[in-house]
Amino acid sequence: MHSAQQPNTIVIVGGVAGGMSCATRLRRLDEKANIIVLEKGTYVSYANCGIPYALGNVIKGEAKLHLQTAEKIASWFNIDVKTDAELVAIERTSKLIRVKYRVNEGCGSTGATEHIRYDKLVLALGAESFKLPIKGIDSGHVFTLQTIPDLQHIQSYIATNKCQNVAVIGGGFIGLEAAENLRLLGTNVTVLEYLPHVFPPIDRDMAEPLHKEMERNGIHLVLNARITEITSSQILLDKTSPVNADLVILAVGVRPRTAVVEDAGIWVGKAGVVVNDTMQTSDPDIYAVGDMVETPHLVSGQMVKIALAGPANRQGRLAADHICGLNNSYRGNVGTAVCKVFDLTVSTVGLSVEALKAIGHGDKTRYLIIHPAHHAGYYPGAEPMVIKVVFEDGSGRLLGAQIVGKEGVDKRNDLLAMAIRGGLSIEDLEHVELGYSPPYGAAKDPVNMIGFVGGNILRGLVQMINAEDLIDDLRSDGLEKYQIIDVRSLEEFRQGHMVGAINIPIGDLRKSLASLDKAKKLLVYCWVGYRGYLGYRILKQNGFEVVNLNGGFKAVCIGGYNALVETK
Amino acid sequence: MHSAQQPNTIVIVGGVAGGMSCATRLRRLDEKANIIVLEKGTYVSYANCGIPYALGNVIKGEAKLHLQTAEKIASWFNIDVKTDAELVAIERTSKLIRVKYRVNEGCGSTGATEHIRYDKLVLALGAESFKLPIKGIDSGHVFTLQTIPDLQHIQSYIATNKCQNVAVIGGGFIGLEAAENLRLLGTNVTVLEYLPHVFPPIDRDMAEPLHKEMERNGIHLVLNARITEITSSQILLDKTSPVNADLVILAVGVRPRTAVVEDAGIWVGKAGVVVNDTMQTSDPDIYAVGDMVETPHLVSGQMVKIALAGPANRQGRLAADHICGLNNSYRGNVGTAVCKVFDLTVSTVGLSVEALKAIGHGDKTRYLIIHPAHHAGYYPGAEPMVIKVVFEDGSGRLLGAQIVGKEGVDKRNDLLAMAIRGGLSIEDLEHVELGYSPPYGAAKDPVNMIGFVGGNILRGLVQMINAEDLIDDLRSDGLEKYQIIDVRSLEEFRQGHMVGAINIPIGDLRKSLASLDKAKKLLVYCWVGYRGYLGYRILKQNGFEVVNLNGGFKAVCIGGYNALVETK
Repeated sequence: MHSAQQPNTIVIVGGVAGGMSCATRLRRLDEKANIIVLEKGTYVSYANCGIPYALGNVIKGEAKLHLQTAEKIASWFNIDVKTDAELVAIERTSKLIRVKYRVNEGCGSTGATEHIRYDKLVLALGAESFKLPIKGIDSGHVFTLQTIPDLQHIQSYIATNKCQNVAVIGGGFIGLEAAENLRLLGTNVTVLEYLPHVFPPIDRDMAEPLHKEMERNGIHLVLNARITEITSSQILLDKTSPVNADLVILAVGVRPRTAVVEDAGIWVGKAGVVVNDTMQTSDPDIYAVGDMVETPHLVSGQMVKIALAGPANRQGRLAADHICGLNNSYRGNVGTAVCKVFDLTVSTVGLSVEALKAIGHGDKTRYLIIHPAHHAGYYPGAEPMVIKVVFEDGSGRLLGAQIVGKEGVDKRNDLLAMAIRGGLSIEDLEHVELGYSPPYGAAKDPVNMIGFVGGNILRGLVQMINAEDLIDDLRSDGLEKYQIIDVRSLEEFRQGHMVGAINIPIGDLRKSLASLDKAKKLLVYCWVGYRGYLGYRILKQNGFEVVNLNGGFKAVCIGGYNALVETK
Repeated sequence: MHSAQQPNTIVIVGGVAGGMSCATRLRRLDEKANIIVLEKGTYVSYANCGIPYALGNVIKGEAKLHLQTAEKIASWFNIDVKTDAELVAIERTSKLIRVKYRVNEGCGSTGATEHIRYDKLVLALGAESFKLPIKGIDSGHVFTLQTIPDLQHIQSYIATNKCQNVAVIGGGFIGLEAAENLRLLGTNVTVLEYLPHVFPPIDRDMAEPLHKEMERNGIHLVLNARITEITSSQILLDKTSPVNADLVILAVGVRPRTAVVEDAGIWVGKAGVVVNDTMQTSDPDIYAVGDMVETPHLVSGQMVKIALAGPANRQGRLAADHICGLNNSYRGNVGTAVCKVFDLTVSTVGLSVEALKAIGHGDKTRYLIIHPAHHAGYYPGAEPMVIKVVFEDGSGRLLGAQIVGKEGVDKRNDLLAMAIRGGLSIEDLEHVELGYSPPYGAAKDPVNMIGFVGGNILRGLVQMINAEDLIDDLRSDGLEKYQIIDVRSLEEFRQGHMVGAINIPIGDLRKSLASLDKAKKLLVYCWVGYRGYLGYRILKQNGFEVVNLNGGFKAVCIGGYNALVETK
C-alpha cells in the first residue's frame, strides 16, 4: 500500500497491444501513479497485425504501423517508456524486477542492468515464434515475421539478394498473409503446411476453396509437408521433391514467453501463464495479459492461448481496471478469427468439427452446410459464401462456424460470435432481425437460414447425410445401399453429378414415386440443398426412408470429395 | 378437424413475402394438405424490395424481381395459385371466404365471385400507401411505388412523357430509394419531407449527413414541407416556392389493409391486426402475418407495425409451423433497418432519442457518439462512420443505435441487433470477440468501442455534454458559464473550433492547469472525443468540474449544430 506522498508504481513489461492498452488505461484512471513501460524492442505501440501487409506494400510505408510514438505517449499520458529494455528476473519478495538494457547506439541504450521497484507489475511479454528442430533453421535466409525489425530485415534481404523463390513454412494466419503479400511482390511463393490443409482452425473441406484460391494466384502449395533440411537454396522434404527457396519465412505458430515467469515461481499452465478473470497471476501483485497467458475457451471449456490483438488489448485494459479498483473481469474467448486469402475471406468462431472430435465431442455434435449469397440475389454483385455451422445435438447450442466467401463473410461470422456470447441456440437464429435492403442482405439473411435449417434438423424434419460419411461408405461397403436421386434439372445433372445418381427433377418427383424402390434408402440431393430438402419432405411423407445431402452437390464439389463425383 | 380422407384446406390470401413463405413451408410440413394461394395482383412471389432499384436500372430487367413463377410454385410445391383474386369477405361461422376475380383478359380471369371453404385461413394482405388529403393527389402523374405494375406504370409514363422533373413525397425508406434511382435516370429530383429530417427512425443530427449526401448528388431537398396542392406541373407549398414536377412519387408510408378483417369482426389494434405469438388473430382458425399485423417492439414494449420483408417472411413461416403443430413462436421486433443513400449507408436498430422522448422515456436514457473507422486505420480504404448508441441510465440496457457511413455500417448495426436480441448491455459489448484482421476490423472494433465508452459513462469515469444541450444553453443563458478548452493541435484549432474555445493541446494540458479557472465548469473537447476524454480525466483528477463533448467537435459539424462553430 502506498501513502498519498508515495504514488503507486506500476511497471508494465511489453509495449505493444496488451501492455500499451494497460498503460494508457492506467493513466486515464490514475493521474498520479508512476507508470513505467519497458519494451524489449526498439518500437512501442505498433500494429503488428499490419506487418504482412507492409511487406507486400499494401500498407505503404512502415510509418503507418506506428500507432503512437514514445514521445507522444510521454506527452499525452505522462508514461515513462523505456525501449530496448529486457526483463531478466522478477524478485517477488522485494518487489523488484531486474532489467537489462540492450546495447543500441542509436537509441542511447547502454547495456546496463537496473533494478526497478514495483507496486504492481503487468507482464505482456507476448509469444515467440516456434523454431522447428530442422537442420538449417538458423541460416541467415530464414526469418520470422513478427516485429518491425523482422520486416526491415526481410525487406533488406530481398532487396540485397534479389530473391526469386520464397518458401513460407506454415499455412496458418501469418503464413497465409505472408504468402499473399510476397506473391504481390512478384516472387515465386511456396507454402509448406505440415497438416493436410491450411488454416488449421477450420475443417479440411472448408479449407479446399482456400487451396484453390492460392493455386489460382500462383502459390505452390505443399500439404502434409515433412521438412528434413533447409539449405541455402532449397527446402528438402521427406518423400517429395525439394522446393527452391532463397528466402524462408517461418510461420509455424508461437509459444508464450514464460521463462522469466517460471523462474520467479509464478504458475504456468499447459497453454500459458495461469491468470484469474482479473488477469492476476498466482502472485496477486503481478498481472499477465496477451499472448503469454491462457484463458478459458467458452465452447470447449479448456484453457487456451489466443495469440490475437483483440483479446490482448481487452485484457490489458482489464488489468488496469483491476489495479485501479474497478469491478470488471475477462469473460473468456469464443475463438473468433478472420483472414484474407487473396480474393477470398475465411472466418471462424468456436470450434471446428475436427477440433471437437479431437477433444472427444464428435459424437454429440451435428453440422449444417449452406451456400447463401451475401445479399439479395436479384441485386447486382451478390457473392456466394459457404457456411458450416456446428451445433450440439438436442440442445442446439452453437459450437462453431466456418465461412468462406467474398463479401459479407466477416459480418456473418461476427454475428455468430455475438450469438454465442449472448447464449443463443441455433434455433434462436431464426428469430434474429437483421437489416435488409437489397444492397446489404436478404429477407432471409444467411444467419436466419442457419436458424431455419438448424431448427429443421433438430426437429427431425430432415435427416442429413454428410459427404464425409459417404466417403466412409465408399471405403467400406460402397454406395449401392442408397438409391441416389438428383432432383436438379437435366441440364444441371448433365454437367456432373454424384456417382450412381439418377435424375428426377423436383417438379417430377411426386409423379415418379411409383418408380422408386421402397426397400432401399433414398439419398436425395440438389446443388445447394434446398430442392433436396423439398424432395426429402415429399419422399419422407410418402413413406420412404430418405436422407438429404448436407450442403448439396456444391458441398461435395467445394469440399474436394472427388470420389463422389461423376463428370460426363 | 379433418379425417384422413378429407385433407386440411389451408387458404392463404396474399402471394408475396409472408403469404408465400407460409404456403411453401406448409407444403414442406404437410404433403397432403390442400393449399390455395390467392393473390390480388397479377404476380406472386416477387421481390418488392427491389422495385426502386429496378426503376433506376440498377437491377436490369423486371424479370430478376420474379423470385418464383406460379408454374414453378405449382410444380415444386403442388400449390394452387390464383392471381387477380381479391378477398372481399370472410364468413367465419361457415368458414368460407368470398373471392372476386378481377377482369383481366391476359390472365384468363373472369370477374366472377367464388366461395372457398377453409380449415385454416392465413391473411397476408399487406399494407397500402397512404394517400394524402391534398388537391391533385388523384392526378394521372401521381404514382405509388409498391408493386410491379406500379413500376411498369411509372416507367411507361416517364418514357411517354419524357419527364424531366420528379418529386418524391416522403423521405423515408422508399422515398430515399426512389429519389436515388430516379436521379440515376438523369431526371431532376426533389424530395419533400414533412418532418425536419429524412429517414424518420433516426435523430435529426444523424440525418444531417444524409441531407448533405443527397444534395451532393443533385437532389433538391425540402424539409418541413407543407404541400397544399399538386398541379400538373408543380407541387405547391405553404410559405415556400412551388416545386416543378411532371411526375410525382408518393412515398409517405403505408397502412395495413384491415377493412375485410374488421368487417368479419376480427380484432384490429391501433397499429394493425391483433395476433398472438403464433400469428393467430382473435379467431384461432385465422392467422395474419406481415405488414397488416401489429407485433411487440422489444425495446418500447409497444405494439407496432413493421412493414419489412424479413419479419413478414418469418411470420408466414411461423403461421405454417403452428398450423402443422410445431412449437414455435414470434419473438417480437427490435426494429432493425438499413438503407442506401447514394454512397452512404444509414442503419438503425431499436429506438432513436427522438422516439424515446416521444414515448416519455427521454429522462432515463443516455447516448454516446463515436466516430470509428470500419477497419484498421493503417490498412488502405478505412472508411469513417458515426455511431450513436442510446442506452438506459444505470442498467446500461441497449435501447437503440443509429449508424451512418460507408463500409461496415450494416455489420455493426446487425451486431447491435443481435446484442439486443441476446440481452447484452452496453457494457457487455466491451467483451465481445469480433474477427480482427486489418482488412476487416480493428483490435478494438467499433462495437467494442461502444462498450468501452458506454462503460466509462455508466461508471462515472466521464461526464458527457451533448451538442443539443449546448444549443439549449445558447438559447437561454449562453455558453459563458463554460470555460471551453479545445485540446487538439493548433493546426486543427485554426481550421475551425467551438465558439469561445481556447486551445490547449492535450500534451500541454498538465502544465497549463494553473492557468485555468477552478470556479468555472470546464468543457473539454477534441475532434472525435478521445483526447477530450483524456483531458477530462486529467482535469477531473486535478479537482476541476468538467464535461467532455459527446462525439467531439466532429459530432457538432456532422450534426449541423452550426451555432456552436466558429470558423476563422
